[in-house]
Amino acid sequence: MDQQLYDFGMIGLGVMGRNFLLNVADDGFGALGTDIDQESVDALNEEGKEMRVKGVSTQKEFVSLLSRPRKIMMLVPAGKIVDSVIEGLLPILDEGDILIDGGNSHYDDTDRRYEYLKTKGIRFLGAGVSGGAKGARLGPSIMPGGDRSAWEDVRPILETVAAKVNGDPCVTYIGEKSSGHYVKMVHNGIEYGLMQLLAEAYDILKRVGGMDNDQMSELFTRWNNGRLNSYLVEITAAILKFREEGSETHLLDVILDKAKQKGTGKWTSQSAMDIGVPIPTIDSAVTMRAISAFKEYRQDNSKLYTVVHPDEPLLKGEGLAEAVEKALYFGFVCCYAQGMHLLAEASEEMDYKLDLEGIARIWRGGCIIRAELLETIRSAYGKREGLKNMMATIEFREDLHDCRDAVAEIVHQANERGVPSMCLSSALQYFEAFRSERLPLNLVQAQRDYFGSHTYERLDEKGTFHTTWDPKKIHKAGDETDSAIPTDPNEAKVMDPPSGAEG
Amino acid sequence: MDQQLYDFGMIGLGVMGRNFLLNVADDGFGALGTDIDQESVDALNEEGKEMRVKGVSTQKEFVSLLSRPRKIMMLVPAGKIVDSVIEGLLPILDEGDILIDGGNSHYDDTDRRYEYLKTKGIRFLGAGVSGGAKGARLGPSIMPGGDRSAWEDVRPILETVAAKVNGDPCVTYIGEKSSGHYVKMVHNGIEYGLMQLLAEAYDILKRVGGMDNDQMSELFTRWNNGRLNSYLVEITAAILKFREEGSETHLLDVILDKAKQKGTGKWTSQSAMDIGVPIPTIDSAVTMRAISAFKEYRQDNSKLYTVVHPDEPLLKGEGLAEAVEKALYFGFVCCYAQGMHLLAEASEEMDYKLDLEGIARIWRGGCIIRAELLETIRSAYGKREGLKNMMATIEFREDLHDCRDAVAEIVHQANERGVPSMCLSSALQYFEAFRSERLPLNLVQAQRDYFGSHTYERLDEKGTFHTTWDPKKIHKAGDETDSAIPTDPNEAKVMDPPSGAEG
Repeated sequence: MDQQLYDFGMIGLGVMGRNFLLNVADDGFGALGTDIDQESVDALNEEGKEMRVKGVSTQKEFVSLLSRPRKIMMLVPAGKIVDSVIEGLLPILDEGDILIDGGNSHYDDTDRRYEYLKTKGIRFLGAGVSGGAKGARLGPSIMPGGDRSAWEDVRPILETVAAKVNGDPCVTYIGEKSSGHYVKMVHNGIEYGLMQLLAEAYDILKRVGGMDNDQMSELFTRWNNGRLNSYLVEITAAILKFREEGSETHLLDVILDKAKQKGTGKWTSQSAMDIGVPIPTIDSAVTMRAISAFKEYRQDNSKLYTVVHPDEPLLKGEGLAEAVEKALYFGFVCCYAQGMHLLAEASEEMDYKLDLEGIARIWRGGCIIRAELLETIRSAYGKREGLKNMMATIEFREDLHDCRDAVAEIVHQANERGVPSMCLSSALQYFEAFRSERLPLNLVQAQRDYFGSHTYERLDEKGTFHTTWDPKKIHKAGDETDSAIPTDPNEAKVMDPPSGAEG
Repeated sequence: MDQQLYDFGMIGLGVMGRNFLLNVADDGFGALGTDIDQESVDALNEEGKEMRVKGVSTQKEFVSLLSRPRKIMMLVPAGKIVDSVIEGLLPILDEGDILIDGGNSHYDDTDRRYEYLKTKGIRFLGAGVSGGAKGARLGPSIMPGGDRSAWEDVRPILETVAAKVNGDPCVTYIGEKSSGHYVKMVHNGIEYGLMQLLAEAYDILKRVGGMDNDQMSELFTRWNNGRLNSYLVEITAAILKFREEGSETHLLDVILDKAKQKGTGKWTSQSAMDIGVPIPTIDSAVTMRAISAFKEYRQDNSKLYTVVHPDEPLLKGEGLAEAVEKALYFGFVCCYAQGMHLLAEASEEMDYKLDLEGIARIWRGGCIIRAELLETIRSAYGKREGLKNMMATIEFREDLHDCRDAVAEIVHQANERGVPSMCLSSALQYFEAFRSERLPLNLVQAQRDYFGSHTYERLDEKGTFHTTWDPKKIHKAGDETDSAIPTDPNEAKVMDPPSGAEG
């Protein structure tokens, strides 16, 4: 078998790379791997000895054993390592070979590498891979973007290894340039939001409702059989009831409440701000991870600020459970809506030409945010070309209407007992703001024009206006001479925006 | 007089540049300006004819008329224009001349220009200038960072033109490199937060309390005489009562509720996410500007989602006014606390060596966020070396405690009537999260370890742990053979974080 060339190569045999490669081999493809760590290479050879899979130690041997055009995926930590792997490969690859970055690279890096590799004759795909270790092994969701001809060449392999939903593979060509990594980034942003919403629901059930871990586990299991059906709800139920062997304590109770992050959620928020798309529920999840890291401050503050609990929670038992289910569902819908809206605007801004229905479709299986809800989302985008924000669609309107009061009530109950609900609150505020025909931002525009002459628009007239709000003459304290600035009281004239500084 | 050399030069005679230069001239310095727009040059000569101020049309003449070392400020739009002005000047400047960028440049650009100009022998200061047109004319707050010897040379001029608080000038050397622009950026981020908090207070008084503009103007005037005393509260009162000449309508009522932004608020949020400092009230203000821009969606949604108002607001009149004052004060404190905390962490992260007391001191006058509160903030930082987050200081503890229930009540009332309160809510959630000894982020860490083997820490043991949460053997659907992945149930061993992808 060693004499035969292999169909697919993997550089980086960590948790994700090893499992992805075993998945490829499972499906009958010849799978070749390499890693700078010899132990990982040996482990692959040991694990794969009954399969058409092999680990080699040098990139030279690796490249020589792949059929052409070579199809090589990298699953290495994002950043400089990706560049150094690329530089190592370039002298030994041939024109037309395909390189796939399967890690969580920043989309700016992917665009840079795409352009660079084009000049070298290498066809590059930036592909998000979601599903964790188990997903990589049994079928992940894969989001490849970049060189379309490369996609056509790797398509048979990727479609075979990807998760399936009713036989439909969870992989599709995402779009041009860095679109694959951008879409994976937003996937992770949504993931941050859902995880934090689940954490808040858990906190509220526990601290407002007094439920124990086993009761909550049962409740999440029940929810997982309803409209909240999703991977994250499923594993939350499993985590809640998990005990280490021989231990009476639930493992969850002894896990430190400082959450880490690798950056994709933060990147999502930062990019959304650049494009001007509101995604407050994802922002709030990023914020809560940051606050969680300041554990020492929280400990100090908890001694300074005491919370007076009402004797009995106003909502408990089934009533509380029902309201939290509604709040969680509402939060989930708002979180997906924000992510999809960002993709819709980014598609235009970055010229990605995304197919939003296709993206919702390949997220239905294999990935961390897979959920029954995504079939409804897929259908909503499928029916309406050009749909950006799904909040107003008939698919969601009635549910949001129906859940809205429960969210307000849950936030209120949580506030009554000093239980933070940053993400749930932000989902409610997002909804309230997005359904407000008039927002008080007319005052913000007036303030900006008052202090910075930034001008404003009007409801009753077209154009751009500036007003001299303060008709008093400008003079220095103690100085009674008039200033040279023209001060026509109440003037409102059309003008160009000034070049002045903001603030 | 034309034969005499001028002390200070300004490039860019827009609203800010012209007023700043007239301010310099007012104080007896010879002030020289130039602009590519001849009309602006002529206007300066017309306005300044009784003063020691002159506008010239070419950079060559401009440079020849300045005393050496030349002190030149640029007040031009941030971005490429700054670079092109610099390139134009370089061939005609002499070694040791001083260039000051007074605009809202991004700190990364300022660092780049600082290094570049050092190689050319030009001493560079990135200086934030706040106060709008009137501030520039009568005394702004100035935040210069960069070359310290350049600061010493321009110090006499900047200290003279800056605003004064009890004789103390609102300018100080901020720190190294781009620190001046960074601090100005955070100033503007705080400004975004305060403005949105004021907008929400206005909306709640109007739509929950049924108050009219004149009543609200009186209320804000009253508040401006209390602990909320600040420039933004003052101009809000003025804006609320403003009518155009001959009009019965308040101008505010016909201003379009779509707020624009020039980017400094967004940059603040993006940088805070990079450094890992939670500033949700500023993030929320950026988000609300973005939502305001989607006016058409809001109009459509407002028809789909009807709000059922309770017949009578539960809080009204004085009761409501009192609670809103508390909520606003609480929001203000949280907003400044977030901005100051960001500066404290950024100082270490960027090696700026910031003096937080000094920054609070120069913000007390001249700038847009000037407020009585800043004297308390100055004193809090002055008393405690190394203080990062002021939330726990004795200066604020009692007030926050006292206001907390009012914020929760106001958010509840607003939610009852469908009035969005994104910024106020985020301030409350920030407070709640920061005073929580335990947050539910243990669940987030458990989830991350479950799907991505990202490991977790424990409360009861030191180290980094990974658990096989799901003891079921991994196999493909329909495939009954065991997988090659070792599945030791309940294993929890110390391990390196995997190189796998997040999500």
